[in-house]
Amino acid sequence: MKHKEKQTVVVVGAGFGGLQLVKHLNHTDYNIILIDKTNHHLFQPLLYQVAMSALSPADISAPIRTILKNSKNLEVIMGEVQAIDRKTKSLYVNGASIDYDTLVIAAGAKHAYFGHDEWEAHAPGLKTLADALAIRGKMLISFEEAESNAFTGSDTPPVRFVVVGGGPTGVELAGALAEIARKTLRHDFKTIDTSKTEIILIEGADRLLTAYDEPLNQKALKDLTALGVKVRLNTIVTNIDETGVYIGDEKIETRNVIWAAGNTASPVIASLETETDRAGRAVVNPDCTLPDDPEVFVIGDAALFTEKGKPLPGIAPVAMQQGRYVAKLLKRRLKGKNTPPFKYFNRGSMATIGRARAVFQAGNIKISGFFAWFLWVFIHIMYLIGFRNRYRVMAEWMWYYLSYKPGARLITTDPYRKPF
Amino acid sequence: MKHKEKQTVVVVGAGFGGLQLVKHLNHTDYNIILIDKTNHHLFQPLLYQVAMSALSPADISAPIRTILKNSKNLEVIMGEVQAIDRKTKSLYVNGASIDYDTLVIAAGAKHAYFGHDEWEAHAPGLKTLADALAIRGKMLISFEEAESNAFTGSDTPPVRFVVVGGGPTGVELAGALAEIARKTLRHDFKTIDTSKTEIILIEGADRLLTAYDEPLNQKALKDLTALGVKVRLNTIVTNIDETGVYIGDEKIETRNVIWAAGNTASPVIASLETETDRAGRAVVNPDCTLPDDPEVFVIGDAALFTEKGKPLPGIAPVAMQQGRYVAKLLKRRLKGKNTPPFKYFNRGSMATIGRARAVFQAGNIKISGFFAWFLWVFIHIMYLIGFRNRYRVMAEWMWYYLSYKPGARLITTDPYRKPF
Repeated sequence: MKHKEKQTVVVVGAGFGGLQLVKHLNHTDYNIILIDKTNHHLFQPLLYQVAMSALSPADISAPIRTILKNSKNLEVIMGEVQAIDRKTKSLYVNGASIDYDTLVIAAGAKHAYFGHDEWEAHAPGLKTLADALAIRGKMLISFEEAESNAFTGSDTPPVRFVVVGGGPTGVELAGALAEIARKTLRHDFKTIDTSKTEIILIEGADRLLTAYDEPLNQKALKDLTALGVKVRLNTIVTNIDETGVYIGDEKIETRNVIWAAGNTASPVIASLETETDRAGRAVVNPDCTLPDDPEVFVIGDAALFTEKGKPLPGIAPVAMQQGRYVAKLLKRRLKGKNTPPFKYFNRGSMATIGRARAVFQAGNIKISGFFAWFLWVFIHIMYLIGFRNRYRVMAEWMWYYLSYKPGARLITTDPYRKPF
Repeated sequence: MKHKEKQTVVVVGAGFGGLQLVKHLNHTDYNIILIDKTNHHLFQPLLYQVAMSALSPADISAPIRTILKNSKNLEVIMGEVQAIDRKTKSLYVNGASIDYDTLVIAAGAKHAYFGHDEWEAHAPGLKTLADALAIRGKMLISFEEAESNAFTGSDTPPVRFVVVGGGPTGVELAGALAEIARKTLRHDFKTIDTSKTEIILIEGADRLLTAYDEPLNQKALKDLTALGVKVRLNTIVTNIDETGVYIGDEKIETRNVIWAAGNTASPVIASLETETDRAGRAVVNPDCTLPDDPEVFVIGDAALFTEKGKPLPGIAPVAMQQGRYVAKLLKRRLKGKNTPPFKYFNRGSMATIGRARAVFQAGNIKISGFFAWFLWVFIHIMYLIGFRNRYRVMAEWMWYYLSYKPGARLITTDPYRKPF
């Protein structure tokens, strides 16, 4: 053998972390195998805009093979990882076995129902394009049904939406729902008054956006209330069925529940047989490896990375920085060099609240209102690199915000064939 | 009563015919109720481009309420018509009853399986956005599965598609499939050679595009064969199951069958209890009314309109002209005037065959090749009025044809939750 055989790095997940990792290992002496459940990378921070019919799927996602078309040392596999065997250094996908020298799990998180998986059928979460299109269809059909019932003289309770969870996703969904109902759809329907739509946001804690500091929690509450959202803090959902949401003895009648209350790490983590926290995230070393395995890395939402005694948040910048860090570490490893621990550079986190309002926090810097929103737009568009046309998305999206006219108000699921 | 009460026109279907009718009855003394199963008008001639992942749903469809937002005398109902009672002049939709003075059925056609409805599960047809997205997902997943199997060393038969039916839809699908496999996807996959994909087009008659005259049938056959499509004429499918297509004793193994072999009029027609032909189309008078009922019109694909002893073809221009004709007739009727019979003005019909080739026929004028294709592009884009951005669609689409790079290659169905 003239050359040492190339090492194989298997990466599970083509989200923000996995994609950065693979991009930064391009043209290196590693064979890379990238496995994802879908055929596309998804710009998840804007997924709620697809659910709320302001953007189309192709605006916020791009095929993985297209994004990485210039990577020569890469094989992309669409499939679900069924099991990982760290002893034999192999994993099982699509019924076959793949060997690795190094494994990077960047599989993200899925919604968690706190032991009530039966709620999922009535309260879908928002993680995939299929989720977003299903929620969009359900939302639009609710208004269509109400209009039809009102016109033909049937009993018509007002359309009511319940969003469970007051984190960034819940706040963004509730704000967008309020604006769609009160502004966008208002002139579409002749018989019902969509501005009477009731939007209820339920949060278990005593404030919204618990990851943010005061006064941003109060600001979010004030902004949502101004949009007409009924925010219920200190409120715990005890049951959800096809007719409504239960809070102890109280029942809120609705068939429109969106779940934004909790995440759990990808089930792939369980098959690593390693230490996890309550959210299923793998505890990792300061270099993102497992405590007992220098050849297995976990990055992004699937990892519990502790810095100064606090876990890093499950947001895109953490995953992206960890992806780049692991790429750097692996490149240095090829040269026999060590790499200092990962350090998160906090550029801040942000959430948008309806049209032209947002909150932004980076350390002690806290901004809210229009400027925070403008910053939010700018940063999000900046990172849409590689998508069909980020300038077009920006244009459409600004247009939407200014005109209240979503350009993608289509039900593409088939309500008569596959009811949800 | 100072004024005679307004008459109610109920229109079933917001396709090409229904939409033209409603638009031309705007600002008249009729109350109009437009009922459709979906919330959008669909530019069906380009639907195969969504299935083949060259265009996105929002490129070829627009919400009905958005298109007709300026119609004051209009109520739009999303729902499926369950029954029509001509004696009481009422119809049933979403469990309620709606009365009409005049009824116009413009409900189009659906695919027909010649008494073998069980084939539908294995051989989907292409009529709705949901159909197109399901076919797209199935097509793209076939390549993903083949790549995964080839990479992990499993047995890998070449990807094979069978299109049943050699009319315009079948010819367009087969041509587009051949180009996607041989050009667009070629560099996306590292292990399989997508140019080895087998595309088989099955037609029962002795030529393709039977509605066109020679030499266009020969031209279509020659063009498809040049693209690598295996065309099998005089071939009757005897069975389809999840493993393949049967032609008598012969079996073609494939899980990818697309049905483009036949149409039948919307089931709404049956509930009119009127004379129909074998394809379920209602026989209509020269003014598009039913033989025994001057208050019920049937237009477009759901009607059998005979002109000079031949039925008019089921194409968009016929439906649009009939929609405008019925609007004119109803407006004249309000003034007590009669209207001469409908006369079809044949501007020609066309079908495209892959990239930059098409056939066009209007009476004795027959054109094929690049000029026919250019004409096809021009006419189709011209009629995309009212959609999100017809210039953008044209740009993306020309770009696709020139570059072989579809911009919408996304699987938005969820293959792990709802397998098809």
